[in-house]
Amino acid sequence: MAKLDFSKLDGLVPAVAQDWRTGEVLMVAFMNEQSWALTLSTGIMHYWSRSRGKLWKKGESSGHVQEVKELRIDCDDDCVLAKVNQVGDAACHAGYRSCFYRIVEKGAALRVDGVRVFDPASVYGEKT
Amino acid sequence: MAKLDFSKLDGLVPAVAQDWRTGEVLMVAFMNEQSWALTLSTGIMHYWSRSRGKLWKKGESSGHVQEVKELRIDCDDDCVLAKVNQVGDAACHAGYRSCFYRIVEKGAALRVDGVRVFDPASVYGEKT
Repeated sequence: MAKLDFSKLDGLVPAVAQDWRTGEVLMVAFMNEQSWALTLSTGIMHYWSRSRGKLWKKGESSGHVQEVKELRIDCDDDCVLAKVNQVGDAACHAGYRSCFYRIVEKGAALRVDGVRVFDPASVYGEKT
Repeated sequence: MAKLDFSKLDGLVPAVAQDWRTGEVLMVAFMNEQSWALTLSTGIMHYWSRSRGKLWKKGESSGHVQEVKELRIDCDDDCVLAKVNQVGDAACHAGYRSCFYRIVEKGAALRVDGVRVFDPASVYGEKT
């Protein structure tokens, strides 16, 4: 039986979301025991938001939920790999398909290399 | 310039190693500032071993080092995605190509689904 070890990171494990069709790594976030249980029972990715300190159903604001296609755990039982169908085709709050839209080049310079699917202002609303 | 935020996790960030040819996620581990700097300067993946509490050049025992083909950081500057050439074709100390060699099935049962490349005893030696 899958039993994750949440003890190494104060109740959290990292979780990698990977596009189930292309294999692109979309994002990495954290799960606590509750979000793992909800992910298993609902088939929709749930994380723990460290910045907000609360359970986080990915896409709860944007509608860009992640449907689980396959779940794997690693050899140490302390990390999750989820193959997902990314609704809306963008996992990143900045509007990119993947949160990893920047390449680190020689000298540690950053170069944007990603597909921008939406304008964040149109999804999350603009502040007035 | 790439500047990672090591403050959220007591000096660490998670790092995902992905096969640069197939896109298979091989492993997830952690980097501290020193291992990130060494990864950048040497082109070989360096992590921080939480269990051993020390800098960890992946493959230092087995010879199965990971050559960096591309480095990316995420939108929050707190995670690394590395596309690597996995020497020896196995990232997992259990001899599998990927550490994520177990699928979580309905009811949370585990099923092995991975390519076993080597016998750990022959690489790390057997205890007598």
